Amino acid sequence: MRQSMFVLRLHPDRRGLSEITDPVRGWVSKQGIASGMLTLFCRHTAASLLSQENAARAVRNDLEKFFYELAPEGEHYEHDDEGPDDMPAHLKTALTQVQLSVPVTDGRMMLGTWQGIYLFEHRAHPSQREIVLHLVGE
Amino acid sequence: MRQSMFVLRLHPDRRGLSEITDPVRGWVSKQGIASGMLTLFCRHTAASLLSQENAARAVRNDLEKFFYELAPEGEHYEHDDEGPDDMPAHLKTALTQVQLSVPVTDGRMMLGTWQGIYLFEHRAHPSQREIVLHLVGE
Amino acid sequence: MRQSMFVLRLHPDRRGLSEITDPVRGWVSKQGIASGMLTLFCRHTAASLLSQENAARAVRNDLEKFFYELAPEGEHYEHDDEGPDDMPAHLKTALTQVQLSVPVTDGRMMLGTWQGIYLFEHRAHPSQREIVLHLVGE
Repeated sequence: MRQSMFVLRLHPDRRGLSEITDPVRGWVSKQGIASGMLTLFCRHTAASLLSQENAARAVRNDLEKFFYELAPEGEHYEHDDEGPDDMPAHLKTALTQVQLSVPVTDGRMMLGTWQGIYLFEHRAHPSQREIVLHLVGE
Repeated sequence: MRQSMFVLRLHPDRRGLSEITDPVRGWVSKQGIASGMLTLFCRHTAASLLSQENAARAVRNDLEKFFYELAPEGEHYEHDDEGPDDMPAHLKTALTQVQLSVPVTDGRMMLGTWQGIYLFEHRAHPSQREIVLHLVGE
Repeated sequence: MRQSMFVLRLHPDRRGLSEITDPVRGWVSKQGIASGMLTLFCRHTAASLLSQENAARAVRNDLEKFFYELAPEGEHYEHDDEGPDDMPAHLKTALTQVQLSVPVTDGRMMLGTWQGIYLFEHRAHPSQREIVLHLVGE
């Protein structure tokens, strides 16, 4: 058993879901670990991780719309000094998650046919995001 | 340290919560790994995993009802070509999670007294579901 | 590769978010494992874990308020024999999570600058809570 770690740096250009399956898959395939467990960890409180449908763009539109309406911008937040999109961003992070573990076999993530991995950016004007990738196995 | 992996195949017959604690517990107890970490991974975008109250059936009824009302069927989704229950299924998956890790000691999951592990099926007419079980330890 | 495990016992005195970053950080630093993966597991169905903003108290007030309103107390639950705060507590646990994994390097959790780890207590009159800490690495 051994482990490998990497920090994936992303520069999302807008709010919403950005697929990161390809760079994650690429990194996993090069670690010389055929079988094990991959963990992704998002080092932020206003962006999160989601495993979701990778085929229909409409699914992602509906997902984004649903979360924007569930945690809307507005004047009802006590925390408002970082802009109207900041508190909704924390709420959407809490409703989803910052960590996701995916089993690996034959050097590949065991995602289902329709599963992609997404960074869910919740700020209107995002800055750089860091996702730690950790693989343990043999 | 060593690891073990298995794909648990389930055939839920209805929408809602189905307890899977027993088959998971059974598999864990047979891996010859006394202490470690179990990870469950659901390979789907319309079904998820939940650790919840295993005693009162009423808790599960209320949980199902709450999520159905939070992400209701309706005509307001852009993605509607896989049936009215499909987009709410993706939303409920995003609101819960597809992965759960549970520590193991003495060959048993360290669940609390009232914790059971459930597959949360979100489609009205579900097909086969696959949950990957991965145990690492010694 | 080796592993270490500990049960952190907490006595929250009220509903809401209580930061547990310090005791977790302290335990991690003493395990003689420089690099690896820490997993926290909450052994309850009415309390959960959250990684969130550790600076502004207002963020935590808004988070608590949001979840109280999303899963309010009321007469509409079938499960009501453990008090009006019990079923909302299960719902808030399901909407967040009971497990969180955080990568570790140089004996420290790789949390982002603004990330703290919180116990999210959902009962009005909480009892003792147990969080299992598991660290694997080398």
